[in-house]
Amino acid sequence: MNDLLIKNVRVMDGAPTEILIRDGRIAQIGAELDGGDAAVEDAGGRIALPGMAEAHTHLDKSLLGYPWYHNDVGGGNLMAMIDNERQMKKRLGLDPHIQSMRHALQTAAFGATMIRSHVDVDTTGGLRALEGVMETAEKLSDVVEIQTVAFPQSGLMISPGTAELLDEAMKMGADLMGGLDPCGVDHDPKGHLDTIFGLAEKHGKGIDIHLHEHGELGAFSMEQILDRAEALGMKGMLTVSHAFCLGIPDPARVDPLLERLGALEASIMTTAPASSPAPLVKQMAQHGIRFGAGNDGIQDTWGPYGNGDMLERAKFVGLRSNLRSDAEMHMALDVCAGGGAKAMGLERREVKLGAPGDLVIVEGVSVAHAIVLHAPRKLVVKAGKVTARDGATLMIAP
Amino acid sequence: MNDLLIKNVRVMDGAPTEILIRDGRIAQIGAELDGGDAAVEDAGGRIALPGMAEAHTHLDKSLLGYPWYHNDVGGGNLMAMIDNERQMKKRLGLDPHIQSMRHALQTAAFGATMIRSHVDVDTTGGLRALEGVMETAEKLSDVVEIQTVAFPQSGLMISPGTAELLDEAMKMGADLMGGLDPCGVDHDPKGHLDTIFGLAEKHGKGIDIHLHEHGELGAFSMEQILDRAEALGMKGMLTVSHAFCLGIPDPARVDPLLERLGALEASIMTTAPASSPAPLVKQMAQHGIRFGAGNDGIQDTWGPYGNGDMLERAKFVGLRSNLRSDAEMHMALDVCAGGGAKAMGLERREVKLGAPGDLVIVEGVSVAHAIVLHAPRKLVVKAGKVTARDGATLMIAP
Repeated sequence: MNDLLIKNVRVMDGAPTEILIRDGRIAQIGAELDGGDAAVEDAGGRIALPGMAEAHTHLDKSLLGYPWYHNDVGGGNLMAMIDNERQMKKRLGLDPHIQSMRHALQTAAFGATMIRSHVDVDTTGGLRALEGVMETAEKLSDVVEIQTVAFPQSGLMISPGTAELLDEAMKMGADLMGGLDPCGVDHDPKGHLDTIFGLAEKHGKGIDIHLHEHGELGAFSMEQILDRAEALGMKGMLTVSHAFCLGIPDPARVDPLLERLGALEASIMTTAPASSPAPLVKQMAQHGIRFGAGNDGIQDTWGPYGNGDMLERAKFVGLRSNLRSDAEMHMALDVCAGGGAKAMGLERREVKLGAPGDLVIVEGVSVAHAIVLHAPRKLVVKAGKVTARDGATLMIAP
Repeated sequence: MNDLLIKNVRVMDGAPTEILIRDGRIAQIGAELDGGDAAVEDAGGRIALPGMAEAHTHLDKSLLGYPWYHNDVGGGNLMAMIDNERQMKKRLGLDPHIQSMRHALQTAAFGATMIRSHVDVDTTGGLRALEGVMETAEKLSDVVEIQTVAFPQSGLMISPGTAELLDEAMKMGADLMGGLDPCGVDHDPKGHLDTIFGLAEKHGKGIDIHLHEHGELGAFSMEQILDRAEALGMKGMLTVSHAFCLGIPDPARVDPLLERLGALEASIMTTAPASSPAPLVKQMAQHGIRFGAGNDGIQDTWGPYGNGDMLERAKFVGLRSNLRSDAEMHMALDVCAGGGAKAMGLERREVKLGAPGDLVIVEGVSVAHAIVLHAPRKLVVKAGKVTARDGATLMIAP
């Protein structure tokens, strides 16, 4: 087993101590521990944070390793961006396995020990992207736990043959059924939602649907989603990603949606976007909604932003939700670490006895300081095994 | 004079070339220049960006150099934050000159060659902060051009004696008259605005007023501000900082304000906040409004964020305004560099013949890439003189 004794380490905002990980879990925290034959690391007084959760990304899309992509498309027109991407992926001959290896390892180097990736399923690429990302998930199982979502990026009802491919994707072992803007992209909310909820039920899996639709349109789609999840009794099995509509500034409109999401123990995933209304940290906490965060795609045809750093993402979460005090900064971290893991349906990561031995050792006087610095990670540990050191994974990306 | 020949350097997105700065200005750009006795630097193929403009900050407030500040106050209550700060500044015995030296040099190390700083004037600290920042401005005149704004942070009408101090501040040589939320803080828009416009007129200076007020309240205050600026013919002399109210999503309400601001050749300064409605890049460009950006206070009692990096700020500007294409990323940079200089009433910084010899040499394949990387600056040049190298200024902060 990968037993590990970390000396001279601070648990979150605490004083220096030692942490012993045995059999993949935090076995002891205290002074002068007897590690036996465990490997030993000296954290140099740095902070131990829980392993982080990249809860919304697209491992098959990044252009990492390619020459820098010059973007002529910009934002604003969703369908133009979708079409441009499908064409560029073909022209560049992106290999989803190689790209997802590069992307996942970079994300792991920043301290993520869990990743949920949406993976394109469409009639151009078929199931090739899913095969590639699943191969990556297997190869990296000691480094980062990867969940896959079968994602109809190019639409479902507007793209005949996609439903059959999604069915196939679930048979291959995709962890969740995906979906996308049932009004905005498919123009057929009933058809879209009946199809993906039907497939989720058939395969006994949860749903993670992209919902970019703003304002009333998004609230309408959210209601259609909730109706189906409630009817199927999908407690703890529904995720809505982005959910910009929860940023509608009218409690009378939004609170009923929040209450229904809370009752379903649903998850919301956010990028903490600066340019859009969005779900907020305290709003989610007040309604008992699980809340995770992610980079979304990084450095791809959609835009130049993102790098896989979930500690920098905690900064974005803090900025988006106007979190400033130390206590509030802990909430921002939690969305990107323990709380994000819970939103992914996984065990909460924490730096405490009995918790999974996933840790990130990083520079900082306090959690708040570590977040705003987001210095290169000194050490990343997955289930007691060192996976990254000084900002780079031990495993080299292809 | 500080003549400088920079070899193997790329002008924005261009191919490697050479740049010669003579007598403080860009004298030649081209291959194999004859620099004569100019100092020579090799940029190693990196990009030259224009010197950057930190157009809204508070040099007297940062806690840089102090132990990390544990924040128990959080956001949400503006008056509580103002009161906490005034108390903490006293308790910690902050020296405005030393703090502004630290803050300004860190900002310069990131490539800013211009800074506009609001400086607290209140009945507790009197004019001490302004004296300290003015001393810094003088000491750093070869490194960064610092403008000062006499800023009634603790209110004006609610704090008798402040108006007299502001008058004194303008006599001392503050560059601009400041102001703050005439309704939200002072509860007396007429009294507040009549006072600061009166002082600006008396001393023949421009105005830069903080306006955090949201929605209709902010729009009302903006109208009161515009009425006075128009009446006094303050073309090119009005700046409104933050101006969250311009983010009201109703063109019928906002467009008339934008048109009046454009006609006044007014400036808007933003932090590109993620948690608030805000003025946007294309909106400002469409109405011919000068647009600058800033970090606001960095690592102070208000919050843990900010570091003085105007290239990272360009990333925030891009994220806030949903800019993605290469052409759009150039717009984000401009807000933080040439356009920001113009918003400060200074000459536009550009990398072209005849422009001021303020340059930043930085890693990146393109401007967009340089923004999202915001790697430590290789070299910062002010009027042909190297002021920072590898992320640190040559002058050491106290």
